[in-house]
Amino acid sequence: MCVALPALPEIQEGDDLAALIAEAWLSAAREDETLTPLPGDVLVVTQKVVSKAEGCVVDLTTIEPRQEAIDFAARWDRDARQVELVLRESAQILRMERGIVISRTHHGFVCANAGIDASNTGAKNIVTLLPRDPDASAARLKARLPVLLGLSNDDPFGVIISDSFGRPWRFGIVDVALGAAGLTALDDLRGTPDADGRVMHSTVVALADEIASAAELASGKTSRQPVVLVRGAPGVGGTGSITTDVVMPEEMDLFR
Amino acid sequence: MCVALPALPEIQEGDDLAALIAEAWLSAAREDETLTPLPGDVLVVTQKVVSKAEGCVVDLTTIEPRQEAIDFAARWDRDARQVELVLRESAQILRMERGIVISRTHHGFVCANAGIDASNTGAKNIVTLLPRDPDASAARLKARLPVLLGLSNDDPFGVIISDSFGRPWRFGIVDVALGAAGLTALDDLRGTPDADGRVMHSTVVALADEIASAAELASGKTSRQPVVLVRGAPGVGGTGSITTDVVMPEEMDLFR
Repeated sequence: MCVALPALPEIQEGDDLAALIAEAWLSAAREDETLTPLPGDVLVVTQKVVSKAEGCVVDLTTIEPRQEAIDFAARWDRDARQVELVLRESAQILRMERGIVISRTHHGFVCANAGIDASNTGAKNIVTLLPRDPDASAARLKARLPVLLGLSNDDPFGVIISDSFGRPWRFGIVDVALGAAGLTALDDLRGTPDADGRVMHSTVVALADEIASAAELASGKTSRQPVVLVRGAPGVGGTGSITTDVVMPEEMDLFR
Repeated sequence: MCVALPALPEIQEGDDLAALIAEAWLSAAREDETLTPLPGDVLVVTQKVVSKAEGCVVDLTTIEPRQEAIDFAARWDRDARQVELVLRESAQILRMERGIVISRTHHGFVCANAGIDASNTGAKNIVTLLPRDPDASAARLKARLPVLLGLSNDDPFGVIISDSFGRPWRFGIVDVALGAAGLTALDDLRGTPDADGRVMHSTVVALADEIASAAELASGKTSRQPVVLVRGAPGVGGTGSITTDVVMPEEMDLFR
């Protein structure tokens, strides 16, 4: 089951995101008791509200772009200050073309424009950066939410911080997990026999990414419903991390 | 809602897959009436049963490997006949390393080992190839399933043929759509205003891929439940195609 929780108020730096999410969830559960929080639930929270609550927000009027950003922005009709921020958030530039910067962020994520986003930020000239440490953001929510929701801290309960990423070779964005807590991020079935008894060699399922994608289907893009409850997902109760388990060191990457 | 339908019998070439799926679904619905087929339902069918039913199955004992396949297989402890098949199914080799061939298949999919799979094939020395035209496979199921299920051909009803693909930059496989019928594969929100009234520039959501990922969470890998019912997904009733809408021509690809 994937259900978007009611919209949150516009989030500001310092807001108690766990409390706001718990309030939205419990109000939904009062309307529909099937939404009452249960052990095993996973909450998928889009990056933008986490970034806002954590103050990972930049006023573009404070940014002085370097010449490279000015030239690239002029050529492709972009905002030079935003290009400057993308360069600052990037550890390694993979490509700059058609107005888009593909880079590896300081976290290790490879994505377009370093995940910097000007849509749904609540004000002109304001952009969000990715959270500084999305696994830690997920862990902080996971530490407080169960108790706020009437569950116990010992109950299995997962939190994913999600964002929409483009991919090579296929059009369209899909939601992936930037951070996770309380669940298995990679389900390693290597060594498990398949239905014929043959050992599977390379089946390592990116559970957290699949849960993020499933949640996106319920969230919509324009509706300000940044939190989705996923019930019945596998792997809850595990101890995965996106940075440790999912982000791939460059030298391991056969697909590049 | 994502629910795996009961296991199908071992599929052989020529089996009426639509009839077998309908039978499994209706038997599940007799046990649990919430599973009764409804307009708007999407069925996600893993590639392997489609390949088997369509005869996209190869007996490795019939394959004569070329020298390149023999050398690569010897170096990495692989089956030279299977490497040979991978090379035959590839339009363009991107990389051959650590026993894995990354290539673009004749369909345009970039994946490991051309999607050829020796697990869960039902017999030794038997491997499955990807279906020849997965959009057409989906369309054939979509043409017959609604009526077999007691729905009308005018009801919105979607079919996705799925497979598990690795990705660059992130560990783990996720399920993606190889073929689709009866739904929007790419949900193009470009030009739609966001919640602040700002026009979103690059939000094209790969709905069919996200649905495939959501379905994988319900299916498990070893349990022989190759068909998952997804209820409540967006985009059903659309007319998407994976080959036309999702597969990206090389020259468009900023991520490479």
